[in-house]
Amino acid sequence: MPRFIGIDPGLANAGWGIIDVNGNRLTYVAHGSIKTKAGVPTPLRLKDIYTEILDIIEKYKPDEAGIETLYFAKNVKSALPVAEAKGVLILGLVMSGLNVGEYTPLQIKQAVVGNGRADKNQVQQMVKLLLALDKIPKPDHAADALAAAICHVHMRTVHV
Amino acid sequence: MPRFIGIDPGLANAGWGIIDVNGNRLTYVAHGSIKTKAGVPTPLRLKDIYTEILDIIEKYKPDEAGIETLYFAKNVKSALPVAEAKGVLILGLVMSGLNVGEYTPLQIKQAVVGNGRADKNQVQQMVKLLLALDKIPKPDHAADALAAAICHVHMRTVHV
Repeated sequence: MPRFIGIDPGLANAGWGIIDVNGNRLTYVAHGSIKTKAGVPTPLRLKDIYTEILDIIEKYKPDEAGIETLYFAKNVKSALPVAEAKGVLILGLVMSGLNVGEYTPLQIKQAVVGNGRADKNQVQQMVKLLLALDKIPKPDHAADALAAAICHVHMRTVHV
Repeated sequence: MPRFIGIDPGLANAGWGIIDVNGNRLTYVAHGSIKTKAGVPTPLRLKDIYTEILDIIEKYKPDEAGIETLYFAKNVKSALPVAEAKGVLILGLVMSGLNVGEYTPLQIKQAVVGNGRADKNQVQQMVKLLLALDKIPKPDHAADALAAAICHVHMRTVHV
């Protein structure tokens, strides 16, 4: 039964979520977030993110990965640290031998809700429904990460 | 005699340069660039960059690092892949136990030329002069990397 990890990248807060896929059935496995503190120098935060994603992969042993990607940013100053963290997260996935698919927010909404213009709440409700959860996974970044994993299952635009 | 590595980050072409420092005297050691091809999926390019920077550090054993940072970008679409590569390069430095200083282009120009508004050619001429080289190091990214190393020597704003 193939297992998928989804990632919503961030420097302060990166979400991750893991699901199993059995035919058409998706089963929730785990979710969480990798947090680093604003006062800490960026190189050490990147090191912590890398170490933690390697630990998560080691623990849950996913087969493939889907990661949300920024293709556009209104605020460059906030987008650049996210992109640095994303580079490190992708590296952790690929160094662990995982295939990595990158998906835009539009692709993720399309895959999860069936509508590229869906709002955040609609995506979260569908994640809850598709994974038969009692409530919406928290924090938001982890729900987004599970959505990225579901998107990868649908798309399998495998980049590696 | 402390040894410094400078990095000018990039996904397609990341420059690196290494110098030794003996009191006030800078000595050129080596320079080059890490190249990845546009057609290759980003996760594999990031993996290659990471592997190659680890090899360079292993070979030359620098003590500290200076890396050029983007604090602003006119073109976000091109800035995001550079930031992803930068995250991976910083990770390679910090995983190798190096202190990493991040410097804006303005800081680098100020440190190397003494003028934050210096143009590219002035920076390259000063790199040639300060390192007693016969000609300007090529490619441009490697000259910029040597400038980042020189800046780190001057500033030592050690981030880690």
